[in-house]
Amino acid sequence: MNQKIIYTNSVGETVENLVAAMGSPKIFVITDRGAFVNALPLLRAQSPLIAEAVTVTIEQGDENKNIDSLGRIWKALGDSGATRSSVIVNVGGGVVTDIGGFAAATFKRGVRFINVPTTLLGAVDAAVGGKTGINFNGLKNEVGCFAEADTVIISTIFFNTLPQQQLLSGYAEMLKHGLLENSRAFSQLLGYSVVSPVFDSERLFDLLRNNVSIKKNIVDNDPTEHGLRRALNLGHTAGHAFESLAIEQHTPIPHGYAVARGLVVALVISRLRLGFPSDTLYQLAAYVKENYGPGHISCDDYPRLIELMSHDKKNPSPDSISFTLLHDVGDVETGCIIPVEEITAALDIYRDLMGLA
Amino acid sequence: MNQKIIYTNSVGETVENLVAAMGSPKIFVITDRGAFVNALPLLRAQSPLIAEAVTVTIEQGDENKNIDSLGRIWKALGDSGATRSSVIVNVGGGVVTDIGGFAAATFKRGVRFINVPTTLLGAVDAAVGGKTGINFNGLKNEVGCFAEADTVIISTIFFNTLPQQQLLSGYAEMLKHGLLENSRAFSQLLGYSVVSPVFDSERLFDLLRNNVSIKKNIVDNDPTEHGLRRALNLGHTAGHAFESLAIEQHTPIPHGYAVARGLVVALVISRLRLGFPSDTLYQLAAYVKENYGPGHISCDDYPRLIELMSHDKKNPSPDSISFTLLHDVGDVETGCIIPVEEITAALDIYRDLMGLA
Repeated sequence: MNQKIIYTNSVGETVENLVAAMGSPKIFVITDRGAFVNALPLLRAQSPLIAEAVTVTIEQGDENKNIDSLGRIWKALGDSGATRSSVIVNVGGGVVTDIGGFAAATFKRGVRFINVPTTLLGAVDAAVGGKTGINFNGLKNEVGCFAEADTVIISTIFFNTLPQQQLLSGYAEMLKHGLLENSRAFSQLLGYSVVSPVFDSERLFDLLRNNVSIKKNIVDNDPTEHGLRRALNLGHTAGHAFESLAIEQHTPIPHGYAVARGLVVALVISRLRLGFPSDTLYQLAAYVKENYGPGHISCDDYPRLIELMSHDKKNPSPDSISFTLLHDVGDVETGCIIPVEEITAALDIYRDLMGLA
Repeated sequence: MNQKIIYTNSVGETVENLVAAMGSPKIFVITDRGAFVNALPLLRAQSPLIAEAVTVTIEQGDENKNIDSLGRIWKALGDSGATRSSVIVNVGGGVVTDIGGFAAATFKRGVRFINVPTTLLGAVDAAVGGKTGINFNGLKNEVGCFAEADTVIISTIFFNTLPQQQLLSGYAEMLKHGLLENSRAFSQLLGYSVVSPVFDSERLFDLLRNNVSIKKNIVDNDPTEHGLRRALNLGHTAGHAFESLAIEQHTPIPHGYAVARGLVVALVISRLRLGFPSDTLYQLAAYVKENYGPGHISCDDYPRLIELMSHDKKNPSPDSISFTLLHDVGDVETGCIIPVEEITAALDIYRDLMGLA
C-alpha cells in the first residue's frame, strides 16, 4: 500500500501542494454539517482551492452514513462534472472519511481521494487504513470496500473546538494502539490526558504521530484483514456490544467510550487465558474508570451483550465469539474463540474492577 | 491479478469442485429472471450445491442494473446469513455479473465470487476482467469498482437457447479482440458465423477459448485501465454513441450491434490517420453490413452522436473525444484525440461503406 500520511498543521497549504503535484485536477469536497461549520471555515481560509471547490455536505451523525447519503454524493459528483481524474477531499470525522472514501472508491470505478480528519477519533482510526463503507440493513459497515486514501493529512488544528467527550473517544483508540505496540508507548499514553485543564495540543500532536504510525504499520502488513490486522480489533468485540446495547437502551455512548471499556474486558480475558500482567490490567482499568466511567452494565444485560458479540462479522462462524487478546503489552494473539461462560466471568470481573458490582 | 478462467461444459461439477477447494463455504446464487428460467435449471441439474443455494433473482434488463437491485441483493445476502467467508455465484449475462460482482465486492467489504456467464457477450466481455458496477444518474456504469471474480467458468452449454441476435451481439466483442490480436485470429473469426444454419457450438467453444485469453492478457497487464487496457475500448467511442442514440430514438439495439458498427467507424478513422490497410477495413465493413446491418444513421444525427461521444468517461477532458485506433491488425494506439470534423468525415465514409449514403 502506498498511502501517504502527512503530519502538519498547515493543512490548506498541504492540500494545495498535493493537488498541484497531481497535475491540478478538479477537486470536490465532501463534508458533514458539523465539519462544515466547525472545520471547513479554517481550511477555506488556508486554501483558495478548498474555498472554491464544489462541496457536498451530508447530515451529521452515524445514522446518516447510509445508502441515501451515498447516493446523494454520487449524484452530486456526477452532476457537478467530476471525472475519473478528479480528486475528492474528505473533510470530517469517521463518518465523512468512511462514506466519502467509499463514494470516491466507487464513483466511475474509483477516483483518488485525500482524507482530512477533523476529529481525534477520525485521525487515529477511520481516516487511515483503507476501510470505507456505510451502515446498511441495521448493521454497521455492512457494505463498503478496502480503498486507501492517496494521502491522509493529520493535524490538531481542528481539535481546539472539539468537545472533551469527542477527544476522549479518539483517545481510546490511541490507548489500543499503545497496548498493541509496547510498554513505553502505552505508559506515555497513560501519562497524558486529553481532559487535563490545560489541553496541550503540541504534546498530543507528538503522541498522535507515533500512534498513527502504529496503525499504519499493522495495516501495511495486512491491508484486507486476513491476519495481523485483526489485532486492531482489540477491545472491539465487547466494545461493539456495549455500543449497540447503549443504542438499544436509548442511551447512546461515543464509540471510544465503548472501546475503552471493551479494552478492559479484553485484558481481563487476556489475564485469565494468557497470563497478561495484572498490574497493567489494573492501570488501564483505573484510567478508564476515571476518564470514561464504568458505563451501566448489569447482570441482566449479559445475555443480550453475548448475543450482540456473536453477531460480529469478524467471527469465523455465527456461534463462536472471537477476541483479540494479549500475552503482554505488544504481544498479540488474534482469533481466540472464547466460550460464553468465560465471557460471563470476565464481565463479572469488569464490573468488579469498575466499581459496579 | 489471479483470476482463473476455466473452459468447460461440466459447469456444475466445476462449481462443486471449486467450492470444495475453498473449504466448502456457504454459497449464494445471484441471477436474473431470464437466466433463472433458461440457464439455472441446467445448472441445478448438474450441481446439488447450486440447487440448494439461496438464490437472489433480480429483474431482467440493463435498466435493472441499478441501485435498487443492488440494495435488494445486499439485503438478501445479509438476511440469509452470508458472511465474509461465503461465496457468491453469479449466473447470467453481463447485467448479472456486473451487479453481482459489485455486490460481492462490497458486501462486508468484499466476499469471493465466481462468474458463470450464460450469454456469449457475458462470456467474452463482462464476466472477465474485474469491471463491476451499476448504472446511476442516467449513466451506464457510473458507479462500481475493479474486483476480479475468483474464477470465471466459460462454457457454451447455455448458448443453444440464446436468440441469434444475442449471439451476434457477443460475437462483435470477439471480432474486436481478433482485431487487437493478429491477422490470423481476425481471419478465423471472419470465417465463422454464429448465424449459419448449423450452429457449431464446438467450433465456437474453440474460438472462445482463444478469444477470452486475448482479453485476459490485456487486463492482466493493466487491471485498472490506466494504459493498455484502453485498447479494449476499440469500437466503443462511436459504439456507445450509436447505442445511446438508438435508446433516445426509442429503437434500442443490442450492445454488440452498436460495437460492430463502432468498429467500422474506428477502422475508418484508423485508415485516415494511421494508414490502416483498406482491404481489412472493407472485409470488416462487409461482414458487419451482412450480419448486423448498417443501422439508421443520417446526417441529422451527427451533432447528437458527437455530443454523446464527448460524454464518454474515457475522455481525458469533456471537450476532447478520444478513440482507440489501429495502425494495423494487432497494432494498437490508444488515447487518440480526434477533431470533430474528422469524426464527421468518418461517419460519412461509414454510411458510404454500409450503403446508407
